[in-house]
Amino acid sequence: MQLGMVGLGRMGSGMTKRLERDGHEVKTYDPKVASTAKTLGALAKQLDTPRHVWMMVPSGEITEGTFQKLLGILEPGDTIVDGGNSNFRDSQRRYKEARKRKISFADVGVSGGIWGLEVGFCLMAGGDKAPLKRLAPIFESLAPENGWAHVGPSGAGHFTKMVHNGIEYGLMQAYAEGFELMYHSEFELDLSEIAGIWRYGSVVRSWLLELLHAAMEQHGDRLEDIAPYVEDSGEGRWTINEAINANVPVPAISAALFARFASRREIDFSAKVQAALRNQFGGHAVKAVKAAKARP
Amino acid sequence: MQLGMVGLGRMGSGMTKRLERDGHEVKTYDPKVASTAKTLGALAKQLDTPRHVWMMVPSGEITEGTFQKLLGILEPGDTIVDGGNSNFRDSQRRYKEARKRKISFADVGVSGGIWGLEVGFCLMAGGDKAPLKRLAPIFESLAPENGWAHVGPSGAGHFTKMVHNGIEYGLMQAYAEGFELMYHSEFELDLSEIAGIWRYGSVVRSWLLELLHAAMEQHGDRLEDIAPYVEDSGEGRWTINEAINANVPVPAISAALFARFASRREIDFSAKVQAALRNQFGGHAVKAVKAAKARP
Repeated sequence: MQLGMVGLGRMGSGMTKRLERDGHEVKTYDPKVASTAKTLGALAKQLDTPRHVWMMVPSGEITEGTFQKLLGILEPGDTIVDGGNSNFRDSQRRYKEARKRKISFADVGVSGGIWGLEVGFCLMAGGDKAPLKRLAPIFESLAPENGWAHVGPSGAGHFTKMVHNGIEYGLMQAYAEGFELMYHSEFELDLSEIAGIWRYGSVVRSWLLELLHAAMEQHGDRLEDIAPYVEDSGEGRWTINEAINANVPVPAISAALFARFASRREIDFSAKVQAALRNQFGGHAVKAVKAAKARP
Repeated sequence: MQLGMVGLGRMGSGMTKRLERDGHEVKTYDPKVASTAKTLGALAKQLDTPRHVWMMVPSGEITEGTFQKLLGILEPGDTIVDGGNSNFRDSQRRYKEARKRKISFADVGVSGGIWGLEVGFCLMAGGDKAPLKRLAPIFESLAPENGWAHVGPSGAGHFTKMVHNGIEYGLMQAYAEGFELMYHSEFELDLSEIAGIWRYGSVVRSWLLELLHAAMEQHGDRLEDIAPYVEDSGEGRWTINEAINANVPVPAISAALFARFASRREIDFSAKVQAALRNQFGGHAVKAVKAAKARP
């Protein structure tokens, strides 16, 4: 079928290639790379009605800006899909805004990263039945077999993707802790070899473990050229916020997010506080900061 | 090659079948099921020297008792393999005890559970090179391709298996938290369907996720007939003990172990303490326990 793709970054370009490989007609718009259309308006003119436009752009301002522009350009009966990592509450609001103009809005969580072109993307779709049914041929081409579902009404797609990413944080932290413990063991273990054999027959085998093994093959099992600094892009925070809203304890996912924060701080002020208190009540020695460093 | 297998439980029987399927001659001893030998002594007589005897029995007293008996029965040049989940410090001690009698001892962590017969068992071997080299044909048959390694000297096999299981605790807890959050969501999600699609193309795909999907297909996605009570069999505790010895923070694995403890307690005394304190300092109401239940 025909689809408009807005955003040809790592994800959008892979998805476009996978769709074209399956015979779909994809019209594209990305201000930074070669596209079929030079503006969103031109993209709309290249599509037959009812149009289906898939946004695959960074969440936040860029998604909101693109969505608002599309609302002004598209016509009743058209459909906007947000395939990015938007907060599901924003998606629920956008659904309502779009509905006022008789435009359909679907929130479709997409997982698979840069490997999706080859393997297929796992898709979690939220929204009304009619537009999602029309989009089924697109989902069938993007996903591996049995790799997509209409999980619920507006917001359910991005909610499910948010939880997916929260779980991902916890899984990564579990591997990270285990490998750090082996890194410090008395046995001089070959961590790449261990990650390697665990891929076959072990209970902890997973795609993330395969990626860790690949990274260790590439960078060495001590990962010497990779700095111990971990970014986050929001879904872990939202998962914990929603856990708080729902009164659900998520200690492992929280530990994973906080470990990322800890990896980024320039000064561990909490350790300063603890050292200061141990010194005050027990006279335990504190390590002095060199004078030059002590002055900010 | 020829191997003596002590213990024909879920793991030992699967391993014996897999070895026999590959043409190995396995002599067996298990006091509870039909075996080739009725005693450990008879098993030793059924094996050519140098003998290789694989213990696949519960860790702790049974492993220790079997090991001590074997030490009295076997001869210099023979080899004992412990394939159970023994603590690696015990394995290091057993290696030394065996060496005094010129008997070899290898600690081989085995992962794969009841699926190992079909898929193969992931093996992490610790000990001296010579006996492990002799045992290589056994490892090749038990493991899937590239699914075993000699990871280090005595103790390294069980240490690596311990960390493997610690990671397993963390992975399980990450999924558990995410699915609990979806269980309580406003969307009435079909958790089995979501676990199902995540198996294909998503970043969180893993063997544990496949097992969770299988469980939800079998028990329903609300797992209604499964009590929220989780046992542990020691490796998580050891992982945290070793993390303490090595000054390595393992917050997610700790959270996972403590969540299991919490699942088992009859009275959440910590919640009583918190409620009592909130009442004392802020006059916040406490929920009363019914009289009949208040008396132990």
